[in-house]
Amino acid sequence: MRKELFKHEVTILKDTFGRLLRRHAKTNLKKLIKKTHPADLAIVFRYFNDDEQTQIFELMQSSDHTIEFLVELDDTLIQKILNIKSAKRVANLIQNASTNDQSYILGFLQEKQAQSVIDLLNKEEQEEIEEIMGYPEDSAGSMMATEVFTLYQNTTCGDALKTLQDQQDAEMVFYLYVTDEDESLVGVASLRALATTQADILLKYIMEKRVHSVRPETDQEDVAQIVAQYNYLAVPVIDSDNRLLGIVTVDDVVDVIREEATEDFFQMAGAGKDREILLKSSWENAKVRLPWLFASWIGGIVAAYIIGKYEHMLESIIALAAFIPVIIGMGGNIGTQSSTIVVRGMATGRIEIGNEIQVLLKELKVGLMLGALYGIMLGLFASFRFISADPMLGLVVGLSICSSMLLAAGVGTFTPLILRKLDIDPAVATGPFVTTSVDILGVLLYFMIAGLLLTI
Amino acid sequence: MRKELFKHEVTILKDTFGRLLRRHAKTNLKKLIKKTHPADLAIVFRYFNDDEQTQIFELMQSSDHTIEFLVELDDTLIQKILNIKSAKRVANLIQNASTNDQSYILGFLQEKQAQSVIDLLNKEEQEEIEEIMGYPEDSAGSMMATEVFTLYQNTTCGDALKTLQDQQDAEMVFYLYVTDEDESLVGVASLRALATTQADILLKYIMEKRVHSVRPETDQEDVAQIVAQYNYLAVPVIDSDNRLLGIVTVDDVVDVIREEATEDFFQMAGAGKDREILLKSSWENAKVRLPWLFASWIGGIVAAYIIGKYEHMLESIIALAAFIPVIIGMGGNIGTQSSTIVVRGMATGRIEIGNEIQVLLKELKVGLMLGALYGIMLGLFASFRFISADPMLGLVVGLSICSSMLLAAGVGTFTPLILRKLDIDPAVATGPFVTTSVDILGVLLYFMIAGLLLTI
Repeated sequence: MRKELFKHEVTILKDTFGRLLRRHAKTNLKKLIKKTHPADLAIVFRYFNDDEQTQIFELMQSSDHTIEFLVELDDTLIQKILNIKSAKRVANLIQNASTNDQSYILGFLQEKQAQSVIDLLNKEEQEEIEEIMGYPEDSAGSMMATEVFTLYQNTTCGDALKTLQDQQDAEMVFYLYVTDEDESLVGVASLRALATTQADILLKYIMEKRVHSVRPETDQEDVAQIVAQYNYLAVPVIDSDNRLLGIVTVDDVVDVIREEATEDFFQMAGAGKDREILLKSSWENAKVRLPWLFASWIGGIVAAYIIGKYEHMLESIIALAAFIPVIIGMGGNIGTQSSTIVVRGMATGRIEIGNEIQVLLKELKVGLMLGALYGIMLGLFASFRFISADPMLGLVVGLSICSSMLLAAGVGTFTPLILRKLDIDPAVATGPFVTTSVDILGVLLYFMIAGLLLTI
Repeated sequence: MRKELFKHEVTILKDTFGRLLRRHAKTNLKKLIKKTHPADLAIVFRYFNDDEQTQIFELMQSSDHTIEFLVELDDTLIQKILNIKSAKRVANLIQNASTNDQSYILGFLQEKQAQSVIDLLNKEEQEEIEEIMGYPEDSAGSMMATEVFTLYQNTTCGDALKTLQDQQDAEMVFYLYVTDEDESLVGVASLRALATTQADILLKYIMEKRVHSVRPETDQEDVAQIVAQYNYLAVPVIDSDNRLLGIVTVDDVVDVIREEATEDFFQMAGAGKDREILLKSSWENAKVRLPWLFASWIGGIVAAYIIGKYEHMLESIIALAAFIPVIIGMGGNIGTQSSTIVVRGMATGRIEIGNEIQVLLKELKVGLMLGALYGIMLGLFASFRFISADPMLGLVVGLSICSSMLLAAGVGTFTPLILRKLDIDPAVATGPFVTTSVDILGVLLYFMIAGLLLTI
């Protein structure tokens, strides 16, 4: 119900913008832009054509609202609208943004353009941006907020509370991080503890000393894992001297979790990892999906070659051809099930180093159970329907289904496990490899079993 | 790097527990339990056998730590350890938990057992629990925290600040919700605004009046969507009279997002939706995966029947059989790509009502591009390799690949779109339907094209 309402609101917004754009009602457009939540504006923006997008963006001022809009905008769109702007306009727009928003936005510009923008900002900001941009993509360092509220460990609770109240960004304060004289992170205090402790007690006596922290080079997926597991609102990022560099906040982690899930989905299906694939042209879309299809094309060629080798057998028992689809189809499906369970299990931490063998054995057992069941069912069908054919056909078909499903479950489980060991993202390579190898192995097994059991 | 460290910690914890368990060192175990973060304990718990799990759980006291542990524990495990406990022990464990944690935990008990536990709690709690348990599963109502900090709109900022400092659960205060005399939600104020406004100003003058809220029956996915889109830390849940019933907090939303992604993954592969499938027995595992495989078995039987119908054609051109795998394989793969992109696009809000036709046309275009490319490549291969066969074979194979890929892209896109229109979860039904129908249609197209172009 709520979903429909929500979509309804977006539709109304879209229509209102459309009407005002057609009438070139600049003043009203400016008002509407200001009134619209930046996140909503970012969504509505997807539905405008290039010209409309430029018109609206032209009307936007240098403000927090605009920054938030840019940060929420799809990568493809931010790239499109910013790269045609002058460095001066971009610098003007982002000058008051936080350092991590600045470097996020600059990341979408061509290198030369980004440098011109950076040159226009003030010295201090330049250094901070360059530091953030120096961290690897998708790391804690590249997504952390550097403006963190910290307190000194020998501050009293009373003073801490006063400082907190004067804090401009108090709504951003999730935890009170406590440091020592060297600015090393030594603890964290909760707002509750602060408010319910006598005013003259020092922070160091009430703070929690065990703090989960990450390094700037920690991968964003691992940061997300920690936030999700411990229900944190923020995780501190520290350097090798334990100095607090920034915090990664839960709202960014929410985005990471959604994005990573989408990327894994697409990669498993061999459709790239671009979450904005729908914003791209058909040709770009096709290009991304081409490689996996090539793998499966090669697999098909090899299967054709194998079948060609057994031409003489097919000539005498033509009914064999009829069961090729079901044998590779069932194998492919159970293989996909196994690999999906394993890839996702690794992403969510359910499959750890150490329980791989157990997982593999379980999947093989499942493969055998399902293989035996469907093998018997298909074998019976084959015997009755093709009663005129060789009486052994049912046995051949049943055994083939059973063994190809067992094998597929094994390949589907083993492939992502071994890819992780080799430090290759299992989501990327599992899909193509599993389906292609299951196709080939299924056909090969089928004709080998037929060769053994059928008399030609 | 961090990931490994993290896993390393879990391994150490596992070993330490194991050692103490073998030595029956109860006092040390109790200490270790207390010292271990509940979330870590929940993870380590997966690795213990039934007996060890019971032993550890026996040693746990009625405390916030135990509640947190239970809430973090896998569904399968919480069910297992609680259902063998007496109602009295369970009531004792959960008596001090928040209402939503209580009802969450009670949800895992058998109905009779849950009722016995509820009967042991005090009257007020009983009513609250029954209210929460009355909301549909996976709704905002079932996951909201009912203990919310609210302020009256005619309170001054100074008084508000004082009340806030006395708040026991101050660390849970994400936003300051403001109500009128009827307890209706009328606005929200930020901590920052409160702290930087003169003490005698009334809340109603500084609060933001537009508040995004949800209803208790709103689906958890929609709640997650709102939290993710607007970067909220919490969303208020209101009834039809605008009265504040509770809030859904971001940490629960993080869990929802992860869980929903995993469920969609599994469902797309026809492996059920049980995130804890690895904790289940092989037979339970097999049972869940059986239905999709049955769909694909039926598909295989139909394909066998179709091929049987064209037996006479196969008899004269045996080479036709060799290309069956590649034709259904390529079709299946591109169909999976399209349906993955569409299912995920709908889940993340990128495919809205209104742009479906556009998406379908784009996917068809992609299907045609890739189909033409691989059709030509396969056609050439077929002509050269099977030069002795009918010279038209290359054309037949090429055309078949092209048309089956175009068709598969269409079916892969259309199926989830139409399922959503029919209010069926696209993730559940897309996988089985798409692969099965693509198998059948691919084979049918292939032999029809062969029948038209080849002279037998």
